[in-house]
Amino acid sequence: MKRVGLDLGGTYIKGGIVDEENRIIVHGATPTMTEREPEEIIRDMASLVKKLTEEAGITLRDIAGIGIGSPGTIDAGSGKVLYSNNIRWENVPLAELLGKMLAEDTDCSVIKVRVSNDANCAALGELVCDTDSGVQSAVLLTLGTGVGSGIILNGKLYEGEQPGGAELGHMVICHGGRQCSCGRKGCLEAYVSASALVEDARQAARDTEESLLRVLAGEEADLRGLNGKHVIEAVRKKDTVAVKVFEQYLEYLGCGITNIINIFRPEVIYLGGGICEGFELMEETLQKYVKQNCFGGEIAAVARIKKAAHGNDAGIIGAAALIDIE
Amino acid sequence: MKRVGLDLGGTYIKGGIVDEENRIIVHGATPTMTEREPEEIIRDMASLVKKLTEEAGITLRDIAGIGIGSPGTIDAGSGKVLYSNNIRWENVPLAELLGKMLAEDTDCSVIKVRVSNDANCAALGELVCDTDSGVQSAVLLTLGTGVGSGIILNGKLYEGEQPGGAELGHMVICHGGRQCSCGRKGCLEAYVSASALVEDARQAARDTEESLLRVLAGEEADLRGLNGKHVIEAVRKKDTVAVKVFEQYLEYLGCGITNIINIFRPEVIYLGGGICEGFELMEETLQKYVKQNCFGGEIAAVARIKKAAHGNDAGIIGAAALIDIE
Repeated sequence: MKRVGLDLGGTYIKGGIVDEENRIIVHGATPTMTEREPEEIIRDMASLVKKLTEEAGITLRDIAGIGIGSPGTIDAGSGKVLYSNNIRWENVPLAELLGKMLAEDTDCSVIKVRVSNDANCAALGELVCDTDSGVQSAVLLTLGTGVGSGIILNGKLYEGEQPGGAELGHMVICHGGRQCSCGRKGCLEAYVSASALVEDARQAARDTEESLLRVLAGEEADLRGLNGKHVIEAVRKKDTVAVKVFEQYLEYLGCGITNIINIFRPEVIYLGGGICEGFELMEETLQKYVKQNCFGGEIAAVARIKKAAHGNDAGIIGAAALIDIE
Repeated sequence: MKRVGLDLGGTYIKGGIVDEENRIIVHGATPTMTEREPEEIIRDMASLVKKLTEEAGITLRDIAGIGIGSPGTIDAGSGKVLYSNNIRWENVPLAELLGKMLAEDTDCSVIKVRVSNDANCAALGELVCDTDSGVQSAVLLTLGTGVGSGIILNGKLYEGEQPGGAELGHMVICHGGRQCSCGRKGCLEAYVSASALVEDARQAARDTEESLLRVLAGEEADLRGLNGKHVIEAVRKKDTVAVKVFEQYLEYLGCGITNIINIFRPEVIYLGGGICEGFELMEETLQKYVKQNCFGGEIAAVARIKKAAHGNDAGIIGAAALIDIE
């Protein structure tokens, strides 16, 4: 059966009707405008769902349910957003409210609504779309402003035993190290987020006279204009400063991935986020690193590291896939 | 039904008949003598099983199966010891061999044999014996020569998606830090094993003129005589040097436990190993640390930290409990 997948972001609510082969047959989006009350935003989600079904020429009765990927800490059991810094929600019963609104507005009285963290949905989306079929376990790291993570064990999302788990970005890899947004020092996120990479590149470029990074960053003296794509471009063009920063970045990323493998031994590690456009610059180094560093060496199974290939679509497809797994 | 639990150690094979209430009704042990061939050692395990059942006045037909806790990397599915540095085994089909030997020697042709890592068994044993009944998720860390870990999720052992997982002691918490036995630098094990604590205390005592540690260590100038119990005793007696070392130790341990909570959000963290005789010196500091440092702060669930209270028995009881869970 078809399902609806929604991806609640800080700027847009994106959504789609996802068919039985995990293809998005109708796309849609509406601005989130996070300054509004959660109820208003959820009402827009309901409207988006109705619009999507109409466009697909179906009704709510024709879909198996609605899956939502939301930022923040989610209680998947109740479909509640416990806390999200990104959209500034606290204790919002998202699944319940959306279900009620849709039931009031339509002739479909019972609608299955599931909520999970957005990185979880992205991980699930990558897994169900993976052309290497049969993959049952995977961990996704999204290297963005922060580091999101989604864990799939034995074909199912693993969200921790209680809300607030599966936060691999908040695993300290450098005790007493860099300040992390979560309050701790030395978290993986503080070293391998795209923001961390850009900040490291900025720092290194400031300390050198000549670097392509300075050119790419544009006019501003403090290199504020520099972004992740610039860093990747400079690495690709073998800019010495950028290459050095990137090597150090991969060392930290390799360390975090090795930790994850020693814990979960998944078949695949997916890496997502804009800087993974430079995945070809990372793959070999990372795969070699984990092979050399994983516990048990060659006797133990070492995950393949792959690019999260489905970008934004993975979030929608994975959200829809929440409906299929219990 | 009753079950047999075996704990295969570097020095002894310990075992017991475990009843329906998870009590050991008959105990037994035999030397491991690891210099022998695996087959000889497994034959002694078979003899131990027969001796235990005889003493209990039952036959193999009266037991539901035999669970074995083994050091090293185990393939739980096949009951094979893939690799154990401790007993120097490689690719030993333990479950199969023990099952065959017992079938040949007795009139019981099919015997269920399950194998798991010894720390996994200890974790399971602590959980099934926990007086706070209803605990469904827990992580055990054994602070010994190394750091073993056992993970229970939703009432079941979690051993990783493929062999070589669930190795929480080999999660790097200090990138580029102390050398670990696994080849990496900065693993949790290198900071929070009992050996690490003792080595830190030795170092600190060497650098000071006056410390109870020097007295407790005995004659030898290099403080080689110092052990974990000495350190705990010195902390209890408020020896300044020992207290300082112990505070730093708890900081690392708190960091590792916080990582584990951010990943699994278990209800309980059990701490085991000889130095946990000083658990009352650790509990408050650790509980406060994780509460302050866990992701999501007070909104998220923070595990209780408890002493692994069942020592060696937990390994036997947990091994027996392998038979009950699929």
